[in-house]
Amino acid sequence: MIPESRADVDRDIEATLGLVPEFFKQVPDYLIPTEWASFKSLELSDQTAIPNKYKELIGLAVSGATRCRYCCYFHTEAARLFGATEEEINETALIAKNTMGWSTYLNTLQFDYDAFVAEFDQSLEHIRGQLAGAPA
Amino acid sequence: MIPESRADVDRDIEATLGLVPEFFKQVPDYLIPTEWASFKSLELSDQTAIPNKYKELIGLAVSGATRCRYCCYFHTEAARLFGATEEEINETALIAKNTMGWSTYLNTLQFDYDAFVAEFDQSLEHIRGQLAGAPA
Amino acid sequence: MIPESRADVDRDIEATLGLVPEFFKQVPDYLIPTEWASFKSLELSDQTAIPNKYKELIGLAVSGATRCRYCCYFHTEAARLFGATEEEINETALIAKNTMGWSTYLNTLQFDYDAFVAEFDQSLEHIRGQLAGAPA
Amino acid sequence: MIPESRADVDRDIEATLGLVPEFFKQVPDYLIPTEWASFKSLELSDQTAIPNKYKELIGLAVSGATRCRYCCYFHTEAARLFGATEEEINETALIAKNTMGWSTYLNTLQFDYDAFVAEFDQSLEHIRGQLAGAPA
Amino acid sequence: MIPESRADVDRDIEATLGLVPEFFKQVPDYLIPTEWASFKSLELSDQTAIPNKYKELIGLAVSGATRCRYCCYFHTEAARLFGATEEEINETALIAKNTMGWSTYLNTLQFDYDAFVAEFDQSLEHIRGQLAGAPA
Amino acid sequence: MIPESRADVDRDIEATLGLVPEFFKQVPDYLIPTEWASFKSLELSDQTAIPNKYKELIGLAVSGATRCRYCCYFHTEAARLFGATEEEINETALIAKNTMGWSTYLNTLQFDYDAFVAEFDQSLEHIRGQLAGAPA
Repeated sequence: MIPESRADVDRDIEATLGLVPEFFKQVPDYLIPTEWASFKSLELSDQTAIPNKYKELIGLAVSGATRCRYCCYFHTEAARLFGATEEEINETALIAKNTMGWSTYLNTLQFDYDAFVAEFDQSLEHIRGQLAGAPA
Repeated sequence: MIPESRADVDRDIEATLGLVPEFFKQVPDYLIPTEWASFKSLELSDQTAIPNKYKELIGLAVSGATRCRYCCYFHTEAARLFGATEEEINETALIAKNTMGWSTYLNTLQFDYDAFVAEFDQSLEHIRGQLAGAPA
Repeated sequence: MIPESRADVDRDIEATLGLVPEFFKQVPDYLIPTEWASFKSLELSDQTAIPNKYKELIGLAVSGATRCRYCCYFHTEAARLFGATEEEINETALIAKNTMGWSTYLNTLQFDYDAFVAEFDQSLEHIRGQLAGAPA
Repeated sequence: MIPESRADVDRDIEATLGLVPEFFKQVPDYLIPTEWASFKSLELSDQTAIPNKYKELIGLAVSGATRCRYCCYFHTEAARLFGATEEEINETALIAKNTMGWSTYLNTLQFDYDAFVAEFDQSLEHIRGQLAGAPA
Repeated sequence: MIPESRADVDRDIEATLGLVPEFFKQVPDYLIPTEWASFKSLELSDQTAIPNKYKELIGLAVSGATRCRYCCYFHTEAARLFGATEEEINETALIAKNTMGWSTYLNTLQFDYDAFVAEFDQSLEHIRGQLAGAPA
Repeated sequence: MIPESRADVDRDIEATLGLVPEFFKQVPDYLIPTEWASFKSLELSDQTAIPNKYKELIGLAVSGATRCRYCCYFHTEAARLFGATEEEINETALIAKNTMGWSTYLNTLQFDYDAFVAEFDQSLEHIRGQLAGAPA
């Protein structure tokens, strides 16, 4: 059952995080129960489809691409907590770099979306064919 | 003197652009005189420090990086109007790609800003030295 | 050795993707060898630190957060190619949502960065302690 | 009449703001008359359709979502000047958080735009019906 | 009490919105109770500090500045539902325009943050003095 | 021929920039040869279609619009290196401001894209006619 009083929520945050961070303290009483429960279920549970380490790397890439220094710190350290190596953190930054670079190119030159999709569908079929034909 | 009645402004827009575009029509009466005057002085004057072609390429890169399809169309066509070649338009997209890519890398990995600046200052000095020493 | 002529690069793109996509065709001759080689080594190699499926999910989250429909299509389909389930794709969108939501909250209210870091460091220590003390 | 000399504009800025802020000083002579007039008419007038307090909260939400620390400070303090409570400022951050979160979810999963609009139109009709049927 | 089964949540969404929109259907079972409760409490309640009309205008400005066409549609129509006039919607777009414009200027030229704050604090004092001295 | 060993690449970076900046050091061995070669060919060559000064101003505008303080510093100083005046740097910020402002207005009010394009095409024809008819 979702705890609904501020006191109960605070107790759960403190048990989980060791303290109630200022940014949760600022969330008003009427929202904190559901905000905390959503945050905890998604970010801190090991029952999700994506392992915690990769969830943090996803969060890190988004934070870097959208320039949030709070979240870059948060997700880098949380990724390390869940076992990410320096190489994986660095690669995350490279993938974010590559995504933002090419997306900027595509949007600047306004490539035709339908043609882009058609070409990529053809590529996917080609690659699937190759993977299927690869020796075991 | 800046025209201040809607009718006078509309006449000037029409003389300049051949019609009053819908997005200027939507600007309320109390703002259109100064909004149009600013737009015209900056974007359509050949008295600015940066030539019109490059102003449009700057606008195009910003539009591609921030995903505005109206403005990508606008600035691409305006750049062509002022003489931009396909090669220059494409290179603009490449520079925007490069800038967004590396900036995402730098922000994701939270490089130390002061160290970044110190290193770059050292590079600038090195490059200035080389340029100065280059044979005429 | 990195192929350096356009023809060699095109041949390699075609062997890999089944065709030369329009967006690679537009990259000028002097850049295509290194642009393609970087793209291929990072995005299409299985020698990277992060498995291909997660690399694509990272790219998808970045694309959704920064509103690139080309790249959302690309990374969704590429993630599926590398075995991502619908549940993992959906969770990627939820993590991107959560990251963008909280980062917006933090930036709007200008939380003190150093206090944020100090609190989070304390949390990390608490969580590490719990993980260490957990029964095997 | 819009003042057109730099000296007249500076005098008006100083009378309004108590000083000429550096960022207005940097605007070149040919643009400052219209830039200042637009700024003043929109941001500092009490003749606009939206009351000043809410204009500042709108500016704050935009600034937080797009990560401008200058403007977060500016709009927070200006909102307070026009009577915003801490609760309203906090709620502004929550609305910005909610908007950025859900928009990221929608864009990442590329929901069909027309279906989204059709569903929402149906919801609006439902809600209008309920509001109309509510007892006075 | 927050409904926690999918069926109960769906019933509440349907009672409120007339249908369960696709984007809520996609949220997994373990998150939908708290995601819907947060959304409903913040966006659809008339117990918040900011009136519904202004909450929607804030959401609209954020959506326009960050280029989400789903959310621009959503918040425009929701603002109209809560009584926003065309003039208020248009003014919201003008405030978003002004905020994004000046924030881009400030960030491009890297104005000194502390000097910016000091100047603005001085302005606030000046304006407060004027408001205090204004005849009733 | 593109140097492919880390040592050769580092030697070339050092010869060009006077040192190997930390952000290049962090790029893994398998990517640095092509990343450096792309960077050098695009940003540091005087064989490109757009002169170096304008390439840096384009990078600066993109950096300001997307809030990267590393890149604002980098591109401002690089623009100065290639001869940009303070007036040109300031005008770059004004163009970025104008682009982000109007694009936000257009996206917030969801102007019809096809009508926007049709109107602008008509304007372009009008302006071309005027330029053609202008006395030499």
